[in-house]
Amino acid sequence: MGTKGEGNRQRIIDAADNLFYRRGYNQTSFQDISDATGIPRGNFYYYFKTKDEILSAVVNSRVAGLSVMLNQCESATSDARERLLLFSNMLDYKRDDVIQSGCPIGSLSSELAKDGVELHEISRQVFVLLRDWLRQQFASLGLSNADDLAMDLLAKLQGITVIACAFKDAAFVKRSHQEIKHWIETKTSN
Amino acid sequence: MGTKGEGNRQRIIDAADNLFYRRGYNQTSFQDISDATGIPRGNFYYYFKTKDEILSAVVNSRVAGLSVMLNQCESATSDARERLLLFSNMLDYKRDDVIQSGCPIGSLSSELAKDGVELHEISRQVFVLLRDWLRQQFASLGLSNADDLAMDLLAKLQGITVIACAFKDAAFVKRSHQEIKHWIETKTSN
Repeated sequence: MGTKGEGNRQRIIDAADNLFYRRGYNQTSFQDISDATGIPRGNFYYYFKTKDEILSAVVNSRVAGLSVMLNQCESATSDARERLLLFSNMLDYKRDDVIQSGCPIGSLSSELAKDGVELHEISRQVFVLLRDWLRQQFASLGLSNADDLAMDLLAKLQGITVIACAFKDAAFVKRSHQEIKHWIETKTSN
Repeated sequence: MGTKGEGNRQRIIDAADNLFYRRGYNQTSFQDISDATGIPRGNFYYYFKTKDEILSAVVNSRVAGLSVMLNQCESATSDARERLLLFSNMLDYKRDDVIQSGCPIGSLSSELAKDGVELHEISRQVFVLLRDWLRQQFASLGLSNADDLAMDLLAKLQGITVIACAFKDAAFVKRSHQEIKHWIETKTSN
């Protein structure tokens, strides 16, 4: 695939990523992605045969984007507690998006849980990445229940996004973020 | 509307409720509801003109069903802490459903957040009922931050359901339920 082909492929993925987040996977058609990119619908088949293939590409793209973010947390500090606190700041700088549309990872997972095993497993990969990374951070601090803590932190973040989005409540996100930071500090204190 | 009419109306609501939960609102068609009830699609318009009207009826039905459950918690004990603990048991007896399809309230709210303000506001009514009831329980114990605690408990429950469903993890629900009971006891201790 040439440079133009790669460019078009990435534009399709980026537009689909945004539409899956803002409208939902099932509410996004090939036509919507065509409208958003200006790439004729007929040309899509050169890049993706099915919407499921676009979903896989979007999930891979999200995994790649989150990996960059997690690497930035690792580069910023060698202290795993500080890394976890940096990670939790995501709530803050994504606050407006969260209130409008929820969490892109959680809402996709919740939607696809209803669509059957295969699509749901694809969407889970983003959670798997986060769980592994969080577990590593807790484990590096010598905590034996590192996987439980990783699951708990993921659940806290998901719960906040669902309720903040349901009630359109920015103050709730702000308060909850402070409480999550306090929780991380408590759980990782010697 | 006669008895048969009321019966058909309720059958439509019950089938739609289940389909909205198992497949999602947008993935449920009039035809699906017709198939599930055996009521011809053409007859639906006698009861409901639009799918939005069915949504309103399903949300009203969920509010009514939850009101019964909350009344049962109130009848069972005059101790608000015990009521909150009883309420949290929902996690336990809905465990299989949660793992399969998430929370019916949370997943509908998350889905409809992406569909525009009007539908999202309809779905929010179930959360409003729960938030009010939880706030009343915490307030009756003399807690000044009763609404914050109500929001926190809702968020905890939602987070657990999203992550348990994402990872299909029954043990996580069980462990988290114990932790929620401990949290309720801590927050409501004198």
